[in-house]
Amino acid sequence: MATIEPKILKGFRDFLPERQIPRQRMIETIKASYERFGFEPLETPALEYAEILTGKYGDEGDKLMYRFKDNGDRDVALRYDLTIPLARLVAMNGDMKKPFKRYQVSPVWRADNPQKGRYREFYQCDADIVGSNSPLADAEILALAATALQKLGIKNFIVRVNSREILNAFFSEQEARAGIIRVIDKMDKIGKDGVAKELAELIKDKDTIEMIIAFAETSIDINNRNDIASTAKAFPAVEEPLRKLVGIVESATQMVSGARFVVDFSIARGLDYYTGLIFEVNLTDIQGFGAICAGGRYDGLIGMFSNKPVPAVGASIGLDRLMAALEELKLVKEEKSVARVMVVNFDETLESDYLELAATLRDAGINTIIGFESGDMKKQLSYASDKGIRFALIYGADEKKEGTATVRDLEKGTQEKIAIKSLAGDIIKKLAK
Amino acid sequence: MATIEPKILKGFRDFLPERQIPRQRMIETIKASYERFGFEPLETPALEYAEILTGKYGDEGDKLMYRFKDNGDRDVALRYDLTIPLARLVAMNGDMKKPFKRYQVSPVWRADNPQKGRYREFYQCDADIVGSNSPLADAEILALAATALQKLGIKNFIVRVNSREILNAFFSEQEARAGIIRVIDKMDKIGKDGVAKELAELIKDKDTIEMIIAFAETSIDINNRNDIASTAKAFPAVEEPLRKLVGIVESATQMVSGARFVVDFSIARGLDYYTGLIFEVNLTDIQGFGAICAGGRYDGLIGMFSNKPVPAVGASIGLDRLMAALEELKLVKEEKSVARVMVVNFDETLESDYLELAATLRDAGINTIIGFESGDMKKQLSYASDKGIRFALIYGADEKKEGTATVRDLEKGTQEKIAIKSLAGDIIKKLAK
Repeated sequence: MATIEPKILKGFRDFLPERQIPRQRMIETIKASYERFGFEPLETPALEYAEILTGKYGDEGDKLMYRFKDNGDRDVALRYDLTIPLARLVAMNGDMKKPFKRYQVSPVWRADNPQKGRYREFYQCDADIVGSNSPLADAEILALAATALQKLGIKNFIVRVNSREILNAFFSEQEARAGIIRVIDKMDKIGKDGVAKELAELIKDKDTIEMIIAFAETSIDINNRNDIASTAKAFPAVEEPLRKLVGIVESATQMVSGARFVVDFSIARGLDYYTGLIFEVNLTDIQGFGAICAGGRYDGLIGMFSNKPVPAVGASIGLDRLMAALEELKLVKEEKSVARVMVVNFDETLESDYLELAATLRDAGINTIIGFESGDMKKQLSYASDKGIRFALIYGADEKKEGTATVRDLEKGTQEKIAIKSLAGDIIKKLAK
Repeated sequence: MATIEPKILKGFRDFLPERQIPRQRMIETIKASYERFGFEPLETPALEYAEILTGKYGDEGDKLMYRFKDNGDRDVALRYDLTIPLARLVAMNGDMKKPFKRYQVSPVWRADNPQKGRYREFYQCDADIVGSNSPLADAEILALAATALQKLGIKNFIVRVNSREILNAFFSEQEARAGIIRVIDKMDKIGKDGVAKELAELIKDKDTIEMIIAFAETSIDINNRNDIASTAKAFPAVEEPLRKLVGIVESATQMVSGARFVVDFSIARGLDYYTGLIFEVNLTDIQGFGAICAGGRYDGLIGMFSNKPVPAVGASIGLDRLMAALEELKLVKEEKSVARVMVVNFDETLESDYLELAATLRDAGINTIIGFESGDMKKQLSYASDKGIRFALIYGADEKKEGTATVRDLEKGTQEKIAIKSLAGDIIKKLAK
């Protein structure tokens, strides 16, 4: 066989252990946070009939979808997000108890232009509440997103909230409403002047443009009662939906402390399907990664396959974008190994003992490896050391006679003899320190 | 928009919570077992260049592969297993410290005919040791597979081992060796008579056929020294590789107790790439599911992309087939919810208290939900009960005055008042019982 050049597709990545170990921990933390709020795990397949997915994400979405004919000439596509498959599942399982709270942590595929923090295969961590239109459900989603990020050890983030009801109320008289909303959503990217320029293409009246910009620049700290009141006064059309939004955020803050919530009228979220609350979470220490979590209420989407209205609200954490940002912030600690102990295999006559020592440590819950090739202690110690494995276990004829093992701390460079009887317990204690 | 019929592709499945909760636990248990032996997590993408995957799994494999042109006209395919992508990754990361032990738990895709326990998307749980030809590495893989299954609570399984070296030695004089090995591999499926019939098409001499059948029927309990000796005597050509295989299994049994290992000369594993140890694990209480775990040594495969020999040995647990078998054995306990407590929301004036109670329980690590719609206590209790949520928290004006909460045990039908101060701690104790 001719050698094929080993290569990987553009926009796709291998996660080697040093990166996958912290990444997997992040996934576990997010899942645990979701379960803490009583969201149930669920999994849909990677492939769906194309007709289920197409036409749901705009022209851009259809263009970026991995769509093809399968071996049975079926028109299929790789999932583009986790929400449309959820809608399909809900329609197929009409008897599900509502409210139905589910989470799913899975890859999705988009043939997008790869760039910083954006890949063609990336994980979404979605949590959604299906079948409740209660503001408490909205509040729970906000609290959940903030809690999950806090549990990941992230302190400096801001949750920017808005609602489609506010935007609809404010722009109710504008014919070009959809276009205007799309423009102000870019405030972060193109700034006030950019927004003014693009608005000028849609609206003739200069005063209107100025008022829209003043509106879109509005950002209120949720704890600032005065600002809320003065904003309601400045934009009376939005007073009612603003009070509702503030109520939602206040409920959220009762479930999560220490998170920063800000009402920001420029937040619009591109997707047309949002109907109420919308929000984005940004890291405050870094620019250029966009939202690392986003979501909102979308009451029209879940029922689309059954033609029944099913209210829903959800959040999605973009794991790979978040991880890329954390890496740039040097907040991801690379780890080369999950192993904590290496049993050094240097005396061939003691091989059985090595296997049993390893088994004893593993039974006690300690991740343990053993040298496969007998001999060369130095090489094995250097291997363990390179991988950041904390302890090496050295067991020779002397130790066997004494009923001990020498435990070398490869981090500190110290070593001591420990009785075999208390070996596992002592190592667990040392690791816990 | 016209309503699209909500449907799922043939051979693909949704995992609703009642099934996904135990399934996810199984995945976590397998991962933890792999990490206990010091295997590192790693992840490769779902999509690869087609040329990386094709021609590696025989004609059948190429036929069943999901292969298509992507939006950039690249010839791509969904991964068919986790081993070839590992070989590609190893070739691209030549500087990796060896031995390199990795695991990956991921879906793979095959457009196979769906049948009991066989799906078009299914999870493989692979663990491999790359870069060691030590028999201890083979032993570790056997011990690892048995340990993972034991940790899943499976007791009745048998690990059937053989080696390509034994087959090669025994059939060294047969020209149709590859064909013969393929036939005897079917012993389980078509029985002794079926094998005899198919062998007759390859071999003319009746005595030879009889001898081959006697060989293929050989099955030795690893603890039976006499059987090992008599087998070595009956088939002297295989004595040396048999002793080696027995040594490997003996090492394995020093790392795992209570697992049943049997040498079975009919085991051949279809894939051509195996070079040494081969094994299959079957459940002994159920028929028709085939091997739920299999693997072996494949010294030629990993180096294929770099043209360097890289020895390797590994195991793969077929999660979805295993789960299907366990479901048929009624060994999978369905669970509808991960939540343990529901805070009943029945007094609108106490909504803030409900949110804070839920937050307190969640902070203590208890998975907790809250009723989203205020009122109707009965409906909320019935919801919690249907989902198998253990406790309902009832907190009204009386409880507020007393500083207590009423905890109703929905399983036992009892209830008691508990001081708010000790609420979380008491519930944790009750759950632990």
